Amino acid sequence: MARVTSKKVGDLFVLLKSIKNHGFATLRSVSSFKFSDLEVKHQDLSKLQQKPDASKLVFGKYFTDHMMEVNWDSTTGWGKPVISPLHNLQIHPGAKVLHYAVELFEGMKAFRGVDGNIRLFRPDCNMERMIRTAERSSLPTFHGNELIECIKRLVTMDKEWVPHSEASSLYIRPTFIGTEPALGVVSPSSALLFVVLCPVGPYFASGQKPVSLLADPSYVRAWPGGCGAMKMGSNYAPTIRIQKVAEQSGHQQVLWLYGDDHQLTEAGTMNIFVFLKNKNGEKELVTPPLNGLILPGVTRRSLLELAREWNEFKVSERDITMAEVKEALDEDRLLEIFGAGTACVVCPVSSISYEGKRLSIPTMEHASPLNTRFLKTINDIQYGRVDHPWAVRID
Amino acid sequence: MARVTSKKVGDLFVLLKSIKNHGFATLRSVSSFKFSDLEVKHQDLSKLQQKPDASKLVFGKYFTDHMMEVNWDSTTGWGKPVISPLHNLQIHPGAKVLHYAVELFEGMKAFRGVDGNIRLFRPDCNMERMIRTAERSSLPTFHGNELIECIKRLVTMDKEWVPHSEASSLYIRPTFIGTEPALGVVSPSSALLFVVLCPVGPYFASGQKPVSLLADPSYVRAWPGGCGAMKMGSNYAPTIRIQKVAEQSGHQQVLWLYGDDHQLTEAGTMNIFVFLKNKNGEKELVTPPLNGLILPGVTRRSLLELAREWNEFKVSERDITMAEVKEALDEDRLLEIFGAGTACVVCPVSSISYEGKRLSIPTMEHASPLNTRFLKTINDIQYGRVDHPWAVRID
Repeated sequence: MARVTSKKVGDLFVLLKSIKNHGFATLRSVSSFKFSDLEVKHQDLSKLQQKPDASKLVFGKYFTDHMMEVNWDSTTGWGKPVISPLHNLQIHPGAKVLHYAVELFEGMKAFRGVDGNIRLFRPDCNMERMIRTAERSSLPTFHGNELIECIKRLVTMDKEWVPHSEASSLYIRPTFIGTEPALGVVSPSSALLFVVLCPVGPYFASGQKPVSLLADPSYVRAWPGGCGAMKMGSNYAPTIRIQKVAEQSGHQQVLWLYGDDHQLTEAGTMNIFVFLKNKNGEKELVTPPLNGLILPGVTRRSLLELAREWNEFKVSERDITMAEVKEALDEDRLLEIFGAGTACVVCPVSSISYEGKRLSIPTMEHASPLNTRFLKTINDIQYGRVDHPWAVRID
Repeated sequence: MARVTSKKVGDLFVLLKSIKNHGFATLRSVSSFKFSDLEVKHQDLSKLQQKPDASKLVFGKYFTDHMMEVNWDSTTGWGKPVISPLHNLQIHPGAKVLHYAVELFEGMKAFRGVDGNIRLFRPDCNMERMIRTAERSSLPTFHGNELIECIKRLVTMDKEWVPHSEASSLYIRPTFIGTEPALGVVSPSSALLFVVLCPVGPYFASGQKPVSLLADPSYVRAWPGGCGAMKMGSNYAPTIRIQKVAEQSGHQQVLWLYGDDHQLTEAGTMNIFVFLKNKNGEKELVTPPLNGLILPGVTRRSLLELAREWNEFKVSERDITMAEVKEALDEDRLLEIFGAGTACVVCPVSSISYEGKRLSIPTMEHASPLNTRFLKTINDIQYGRVDHPWAVRID
C-alpha cells in the first residue's frame, strides 16, 4: 500500500480547494524551495556598513548587510535560496512587476529581548497570509516553514543590526515579484522571492504619540470583489496621494471608509479598533470584520485573541459606522480608538477629521487605557519579558 | 514689467487646480526633461539582435535594440534623457515600485505606412493620460511634447524593427516607476521614466478572430473612489488570476461588470462597445461613460469621434447592463459587441458567458459589420492609406 505523506495530503487538499473554487481542476505545483539547500555568501568584512544610531532610526531607510533571494521559473520550479550581500536587483525593463504590479510583500519583525535572545513574532501567521496572497496573485506557493528557516538564518547573520533598544526592532520584508520580461497581462513564467531587513524605530515621525486621521468618504481603499484582503503592492499605490493630502492637512494617516453608511475599514497601514460603552452599557471592543475589505493583520488577530482570553469586556468583529462613532462620542460612551499593525504595533488616535469637523477622540484621556495595556502585553511577549508561544526564538 | 511666459501660466494653472482640488496650495514642480538634452548611445553593430519573423510575432515578447530613460529626483528634478542599448535596470530591493506598485504606463504604436513612412497614432492623447496618471500616482509631471520627441527619436533609431506588415506594428511602452530605496508608503523621492519598444502581431493568440468573454459579477475591476480611470500598474495585478480562470474555461478575456445591476464596464485590456437597435427602433452605439470606473482609451475616443462625424446612428456614452444586452439579444435587436484598445484596435466579441449561460453574440453574422468598418478606418489612418491629423509622422 502506498504511504500517504503529509505533502501528498496537502497537494490533494489544494487540488480539491481549487476544484471547489473554480469548478475545474487546475494543475498547480505546491513544491517549495528548501532551507536545506540554502547557500550563504558573506559580505567582505571591510564592506560591512556602519550601523545607524538606534535613537535616530526612521522607518525603512536603512538596510542591513545581507539579503536572501530565491528564483522561481515555470519550467524548472523553485531554485536554491541564497543569502548574499545586499545588492541591486537586475530587472529587465519589460518585467511584469514594473508594468502590472505583479508583487506582494509581508511585514514582520525581530526583537532583541531583555535576555539577549532574538525573537520573531508569530511568523507562521505572516507565512499563511503570504501564501494566500501568492495564490490570489497567480504567483507560485511554497512551504512557509522553509521561508521562516531562511529568515531566521538571515536575521542571525545580521543579528548585530537588531537594535539594542526596546523602542526599536528589525523589520523583515519578504517580497515576491514577477520577473518575466514580457508585456501582456498574464501570470509570470518567472518570479523572485527576496527578503530584506531594516532596523526601525517608530513608524510615524511623531513617535508613539497619538495620531490624527483624515476620514474622507470620497476616497475608497478596497471594495467587494477586489483584493483589499491581500497584501498585494497594488493596494498601496492608489493610497499614496490621499495619504499626502492627509499629511498636508496635519493628519498622520487616512481612515478609509466604505459604503453609503461610511463604515470604518482600516487606517492607512493599520487595522482599526474602537473601544466604547455600547447602548446596553457594556464595554465593547469593536473592529471591522474580515469581509474582504480588510487586511487580516497579525496584530489585529493577536489583540482579538488577547481580549477574548482576558474575557473582561465584549469583543466584536462587526461593521461600525462613523454615525455610531459620532453618537458614542456625543453620548460620552466612546472610550478609545486605536490602530494596530506590525509597523506601529498599537497606535492611539486622538482625532478624526470627518465631514468638515475635527472629532476629538478621548483615547488618552482616562487612566490605564486599553491600548497601552495591549501595547505592553504585546511588547512583553516580543521583548521576552514573558514567555509566550507567539515569540519564536531564532536560534 | 515681468514677461509672463507660457510656462509660468502653466505653473499657475496647475497651482490653481491643486488649490481647487484640495483647498490648499501644494508646491509641485511642473518642470520637464527636455528633448534637446537627449544623449544617444548606439548599440554596437555586432550586438544588434536578429529581428523576429513578422508572421510569428506574439505580443510583448521581443524588445528592440535600444531603450530611452530619464531619471527624476526630488532634489535635482529631471535629469537628461538618454537613449542607450536595451539593458537590465539596476533596482534597489527596497525600491517603492517593487513593494507599493508605484508605477504607471502607456501603450501606443508606430506603424510602417504603405508609403514607407512611419507614423504614431495620436501620441498627444497618450501623453495627456500619462500625465494625469502621474499626478494621481504622486509622481512628477513633464511636458508631453518632450517625451513624444524622445520617442520619435527612439523609434527612428530602431525603425528597422517596425514590421513591414500591415498586420503588425511596433508597440511603444512608456513606463514610469518609483525607485526610491525606502520602505514606507509615501511618494518616492526618486523615479525613472523609461520607454521600451516591441514589434507586435495580434494581441490574442487567436489572431483577429472574434473572442469570447467571461462575465462573472463576483469579480470587480474598479469602483467609485478608486483609480480605475488611471493607467496605473495596480489596476492590472488583481485581474491576472481572473483572466486565467477565463482562459481555463475557454474564454479570451474577462468582461468586467459593476454594481447590483451588472453594468458592463470594460473587457480585460479593451473598452467595450455595444451596437444595437434600441426600443425606439434607432440604431445606437453604446459605450459606458467615463465615470471613474473606465479607462479612457485612445481607441475608444477615436471610435466615438469617428461615429459622431459619420452621424449615421445614435452614439451614446451611457450605462448599459447585462439585462439590457440580454433583452436586446432576445428581441433580435443586438447587432454587435466589440472591444477597442491600442493592443487589439477593434476586436469583435462572439460570445459572453454570464450566469451559467453562453450568450451567442451575432457580431460577425451580418453583412458589413460596424466593427470591421471602424477597424478599416483606423487602420487606413495608421498605415497611411489616407491622410489624417491623428497619424503623426516620426520624421
